Amino acid sequence: MYNRHSLDDTIAALSTAPGQAAIAVLRVSGAEAIPIVNEGFKGKNLEKTESHTAHLGFLMDAEGGVIDQVVVTLFRGPHSYTGEDTVEISCHGSTWIQQAILNRLIQLGARAAGPGEFTFRAFIHGRMDISQAEGVADLIAAESSAEARLALSHLRGGISKEIAGLRSRLIEFASLLELELDFAEEQVEFANRSQLKTLLEEAILKVQGLVDSFRLGNAIKQGINTVIAGRPNAGKSTLLNALLQEERAIVSDIPGTTRDTIEEVLHIEGIPFRLIDTAGIREAQDQIEAIGVQRTHDKIRQSSILLYVFDVTGLKPAEVQSDIAVLKHPDLEIILIPNKMDLNPYAHPEDFVMEGITPSDIIPTSARNNMNIPYLKERLLQSVTGNHDLLSQNILSNSRHLDCLQRVKEHLRRALEQLNSGGGHELIAMDIRQALHYLGEITGEVTTEDLLESIFTRFCIGK
Amino acid sequence: MYNRHSLDDTIAALSTAPGQAAIAVLRVSGAEAIPIVNEGFKGKNLEKTESHTAHLGFLMDAEGGVIDQVVVTLFRGPHSYTGEDTVEISCHGSTWIQQAILNRLIQLGARAAGPGEFTFRAFIHGRMDISQAEGVADLIAAESSAEARLALSHLRGGISKEIAGLRSRLIEFASLLELELDFAEEQVEFANRSQLKTLLEEAILKVQGLVDSFRLGNAIKQGINTVIAGRPNAGKSTLLNALLQEERAIVSDIPGTTRDTIEEVLHIEGIPFRLIDTAGIREAQDQIEAIGVQRTHDKIRQSSILLYVFDVTGLKPAEVQSDIAVLKHPDLEIILIPNKMDLNPYAHPEDFVMEGITPSDIIPTSARNNMNIPYLKERLLQSVTGNHDLLSQNILSNSRHLDCLQRVKEHLRRALEQLNSGGGHELIAMDIRQALHYLGEITGEVTTEDLLESIFTRFCIGK
Repeated sequence: MYNRHSLDDTIAALSTAPGQAAIAVLRVSGAEAIPIVNEGFKGKNLEKTESHTAHLGFLMDAEGGVIDQVVVTLFRGPHSYTGEDTVEISCHGSTWIQQAILNRLIQLGARAAGPGEFTFRAFIHGRMDISQAEGVADLIAAESSAEARLALSHLRGGISKEIAGLRSRLIEFASLLELELDFAEEQVEFANRSQLKTLLEEAILKVQGLVDSFRLGNAIKQGINTVIAGRPNAGKSTLLNALLQEERAIVSDIPGTTRDTIEEVLHIEGIPFRLIDTAGIREAQDQIEAIGVQRTHDKIRQSSILLYVFDVTGLKPAEVQSDIAVLKHPDLEIILIPNKMDLNPYAHPEDFVMEGITPSDIIPTSARNNMNIPYLKERLLQSVTGNHDLLSQNILSNSRHLDCLQRVKEHLRRALEQLNSGGGHELIAMDIRQALHYLGEITGEVTTEDLLESIFTRFCIGK
Repeated sequence: MYNRHSLDDTIAALSTAPGQAAIAVLRVSGAEAIPIVNEGFKGKNLEKTESHTAHLGFLMDAEGGVIDQVVVTLFRGPHSYTGEDTVEISCHGSTWIQQAILNRLIQLGARAAGPGEFTFRAFIHGRMDISQAEGVADLIAAESSAEARLALSHLRGGISKEIAGLRSRLIEFASLLELELDFAEEQVEFANRSQLKTLLEEAILKVQGLVDSFRLGNAIKQGINTVIAGRPNAGKSTLLNALLQEERAIVSDIPGTTRDTIEEVLHIEGIPFRLIDTAGIREAQDQIEAIGVQRTHDKIRQSSILLYVFDVTGLKPAEVQSDIAVLKHPDLEIILIPNKMDLNPYAHPEDFVMEGITPSDIIPTSARNNMNIPYLKERLLQSVTGNHDLLSQNILSNSRHLDCLQRVKEHLRRALEQLNSGGGHELIAMDIRQALHYLGEITGEVTTEDLLESIFTRFCIGK
């Protein structure tokens, strides 16, 4: 399906979510989109109407009966999503009508579109590159503001521009190096070696920066598993409620927006933290060491942040230390929460500094009074974003891009090594070519049918 | 919500089905619709664009960040669905984005719309009457072509016109009768009594016709329960498959269109027949009388048609008669299907004519060879449509309308009685006024807040 042949067809699909609703929208795209819809439409002659205009009329069946009263909106290529002539049909949202109109469009000569086929055409017609197309899929799947913002920056070409800049400078040097190959006997150097070295070093740094940003990008996409643990009556539930309070108030009542998990999701500046309940620890009546509930340890193993809450009026540093010793694992960031600070104004949070726990990892709170809750949120946010600036920096979130960039980095590193050790230009040129190949795979200058297939079949139908 | 006060607000809602999809559409309607959307929109100045035009741009949050790239389409009142200024925002179909845009619109001054509130406004602004509005709700819920066709005819004012015609003639006479009341002492007759008699007779016939059509309208809306029963090996499954064959081929693969039942639905000219499996009878090894499965009898009791299938090479008329005696109930139409006619060319279907079964109730088939299957379908269709013409006749499908029309009929009948028995004009006039009242309730000339509430809360949000 994802080859140039299929572009001759005019495609049609339901583009809104399936099911009964007030309205539904079907999309038709391709050379024959306007004549096909016009053939079944009773109203204005669509072939004579301007782009970006909407028209009320009736969609008729083959026997001349009315299927539905509809509004059609025309987008003439190249000023459309796909770059082709596109018609959007807005109909009454009966599931039967949605199906009847699609069947009618197929009868009139359209083909049912495959997943992502509209976006595939947008790519083929140069309306976006592959990494932008992937941004579209991510945007549709976005479940938080940070995720949407990230996807939107990809869709708007953030990563693409950075890759393109890198590519064009590398291409220049690669061409010069290859020119040297043609004059191999003469031992000339067209490519300035020290400039090339600087370029390679800069490129590696840039690529490394993007690779590093993946941890954040992935966290934004998948959410950050954050376990709240502690002994009974430490104030875990109060903390959970204090953290979620604001959040709940802004959730609107569109159905289908709630995730199907038993965890609570807290968005901090749009980044989703999955707050995970550790029932086992909560119900333990005795020492944490005594719990031995495999499930709790599993949850902690799958998490990257642990909020260890304790009653500052009760627990001694040694007790906290022994609990932490049981719970910790190498990839776990631990934040200590001495709670109920209001009950003990003489508590010294700094007493709890211990191995692996610096003062900045200790956030004393009074969850009941909301004390320091905003500060805890900031601390959580900072543990994920690190030094990244979400708004201005390109952040990698696609594992395919990560894979490509890791290969790019490897080849650039090898090219730099060759250069530093006075290696031959053939080998340097080859590695740069390889790096360019993988950079091209990100944006789609280099594609295979398999690659296109694997990218576009991830899409939903109708996009 | 459904009073004129609420019209001052600008309302907003998601109008497409909830859930993740390629695109989603939100609607905004009201005096401030265009300025509100314009405030959050980065692109053209929407206040200066023409009606029925579409514009690409960005929807921005309060901090100036992009929520999504969107296409907005403007419909300036009165040339919109609601009759007010309306903006449709087509966004990427992420559930988060749908919610974020709705929240943003509310922040900018819109109010979340209640169920059916857009259509309520269309009614208030004279874009449609109440029975047309009910047609919109029915159309959205339509699950078959006949149901959609019926709803569409209501939406387009089929019933409304018939009611309006009746009403205007009755009003004329009612006015003349009331004029007579003013001149009561003088004993004048402004209203010609024989013309009035003719009118009342005609009106009763017309109303009776609509009342009668409800059986069909309701069958179209609800589907017709059709039990297939018979002894083992009569060929029931083969018959079921033969009936469903064509049907299955035209079902497209939009999810959400399949009903959630274990029955199979057969559409004949768009009318849904629910073919119900009677497992009890199918698995019975002996006499049907021996089954005694309550469930089977329940299914038959809930059905209006029984297809009794039997092996024409095996069963004798007396055996068929004894099975039928067990299965029949007063409201059940029974169609006898002597099956396997190919195996017994000497069979005489007419031998099976018996009490309650005329020759037209016997459809000999060879289900295996598809023999007479089209004829059986025609027979099924005819048993539902009777003498009604689906395409040209107004068919009642709304039980509220039925209720009103039954009252109308009763009052017209009483008026006619009074007239025939030389009763006083006061009583005649009163009954005609009552009939007019109930006619007005159908189309909405007469409304109460309760009535509006009960009608529009049936709608989905966003319509």
